[in-house]
Amino acid sequence: MNTQHPAERILLGPGPSPVPARVLRALGAPTLGHLDPQYIAIMDETCAMLRQVFQTQNALTFPVSGTGMAGMECLAVNLIEPGDEVIVCVNGVFGGRMADVMERCGATVHLVEAPWGEVITPDQIAGALDRFPKSKLVGIVHAETSTGAHQPLEGLADLVHAKGALLLVDAVTSLGGHELRMDDWGIDAIYSGTQKCLSCPPGLAPVSFGPRALEVMDARKTKPQSWYLDVSMLRKYYLGGGGGRVYHHTAPINMTYALHEALTIVLEEGLDVRIQRHAKMHQRLRAGLDEMGIRYIPVRSLHSLNCIGIPDGADDAGTRKRLLEEYGIEIGAGLGVMAGKAWRIGLMGHGATLRNVDLVLTALREVLK
Amino acid sequence: MNTQHPAERILLGPGPSPVPARVLRALGAPTLGHLDPQYIAIMDETCAMLRQVFQTQNALTFPVSGTGMAGMECLAVNLIEPGDEVIVCVNGVFGGRMADVMERCGATVHLVEAPWGEVITPDQIAGALDRFPKSKLVGIVHAETSTGAHQPLEGLADLVHAKGALLLVDAVTSLGGHELRMDDWGIDAIYSGTQKCLSCPPGLAPVSFGPRALEVMDARKTKPQSWYLDVSMLRKYYLGGGGGRVYHHTAPINMTYALHEALTIVLEEGLDVRIQRHAKMHQRLRAGLDEMGIRYIPVRSLHSLNCIGIPDGADDAGTRKRLLEEYGIEIGAGLGVMAGKAWRIGLMGHGATLRNVDLVLTALREVLK
Repeated sequence: MNTQHPAERILLGPGPSPVPARVLRALGAPTLGHLDPQYIAIMDETCAMLRQVFQTQNALTFPVSGTGMAGMECLAVNLIEPGDEVIVCVNGVFGGRMADVMERCGATVHLVEAPWGEVITPDQIAGALDRFPKSKLVGIVHAETSTGAHQPLEGLADLVHAKGALLLVDAVTSLGGHELRMDDWGIDAIYSGTQKCLSCPPGLAPVSFGPRALEVMDARKTKPQSWYLDVSMLRKYYLGGGGGRVYHHTAPINMTYALHEALTIVLEEGLDVRIQRHAKMHQRLRAGLDEMGIRYIPVRSLHSLNCIGIPDGADDAGTRKRLLEEYGIEIGAGLGVMAGKAWRIGLMGHGATLRNVDLVLTALREVLK
Repeated sequence: MNTQHPAERILLGPGPSPVPARVLRALGAPTLGHLDPQYIAIMDETCAMLRQVFQTQNALTFPVSGTGMAGMECLAVNLIEPGDEVIVCVNGVFGGRMADVMERCGATVHLVEAPWGEVITPDQIAGALDRFPKSKLVGIVHAETSTGAHQPLEGLADLVHAKGALLLVDAVTSLGGHELRMDDWGIDAIYSGTQKCLSCPPGLAPVSFGPRALEVMDARKTKPQSWYLDVSMLRKYYLGGGGGRVYHHTAPINMTYALHEALTIVLEEGLDVRIQRHAKMHQRLRAGLDEMGIRYIPVRSLHSLNCIGIPDGADDAGTRKRLLEEYGIEIGAGLGVMAGKAWRIGLMGHGATLRNVDLVLTALREVLK
């Protein structure tokens, strides 16, 4: 194995997704200083494009200098103070992580649970808000990467805002691949990752905070427990202000180039067209899997991530190994309680193409013979 | 300004430093999955090379998925529990940040201070350990990027260990450019950044934990307040174990390629030769600045970062702007109390060359005419 020359895989797992050559080229451009006027311009354009992709007017929209889970933690440490009550919806690994992250912020976490593969109903959330009226926020996962379940979000904000709480959304596996209207849907704070439907390498976590979230942060009595993720300081760098840009930490310069290029590609294609492409490729994959007698696990499947039951008698690790070694195709194993029971086929961003769908179906048929 | 094609600057500020073309090429290699056997091999080699550069045998040596300050935070959240007492040495911005980060972890922080530009003496640390005998650790900055002061570390561990405390070191601006012997010097936990003397873009924070630090982490009664930086989970991914690699978060794949290549270059040159090169280039710059009547601010200057007084009558921002626009050279402004009083010339890694030293001297002479 030559670690100087990584293999060219077709990444059809739960992320990272395949990265376009244009993005890889952008990544390798000469490194600028983080306070260089040219870099600031690149960052400003990147934030402006993120607003378009999140479909938000929020000024405070920027990439956190870490991977998706750093985005989750950024929202939690800035919106929660010790002693707060919060509601977290859990129907898979990532909802469970959100609860863990918020407990570490000193919150009392009230869980709203659904079986893995199912989604949370508005009635469940309304019930929890009634039982725990002091809750400061409701956290929910739009695209549960562990089960492939696609959580409807429309209408939830009305329930949550009526009780004076914030709606916080994990959009790691949906941003750029599924309909997601931050402002129209009343989402107050959101985070995502770069390595899913945006088809940029992992390393940044786009986040956005709306006016209600800003109010909550401005009213804090304690410092956020994380210095690295403290938005009161980060905003002075990302938004600037009277005194210009204030240095906080050295941003991952080259990763910003890559995200800039990845977002440029998203907007060139057009967000709606891209979302429709994800839907079409999902339908094509689904039809092919149906023919093979392979079933989907979630009731309401994501387009970007297809979580399917391992066919009876098939060898989990052996099948994935053959796909990787013979076809150079990566698909994902089951995660958490799904380990050994599910495979996860990602059709994200640059990976959601006719040729990948047809190839993975052909390869699966061959390997499962 | 064309944000698609970043300018080729000569980065002689406090970081990022100039990145070799080989490292930029590695950065743009095809993205692998984070559980791909080939990626795991690249990560293992990267950790092995980091051990060589830190001069340590510590198994738990890996790059944190964030920039240098995430490394600082990683050490703090894992080694500190609420109510702990700690000693932090402060003689510039980064010591101050360490105190802030540790307070946010719930520690009572006892400061040992020296004027900016000076270093902390062993007697000061011994005195603090006597006054605050319950202190769990002593945190100190090896290379204070805000003042250019080079802190001696040899012998400190004996003082600290005699009181049962840990020695924690910030080596962001020294790793790969200055002598730094983690094991010989008895350092228990250390963090650095990639964008200084390793000449890799920013985005990862190499850290290492020794046996005493592991004992402290294993004896924790509470979870670390950060999920993202929780070493009890991270070690299952970076070190593996009986059950193989356990997924925690998606590591910044392409940044790992870049760090792998940057470390390969460091070891090809040879760590000692590289450190001597930094010393020689510092001496050459210093001689040239002396001739121009420009003085160093710190008593004991780093080789990698040269913090100098702005000459009387010179225009701070105007001079830096001309260097950037006419020569494409970035130097750093003063930070904190040094703002408007100092410039910071970095000679780090790939940037510490004869031609850069002679060019920046020539350019400064011209612009200051």
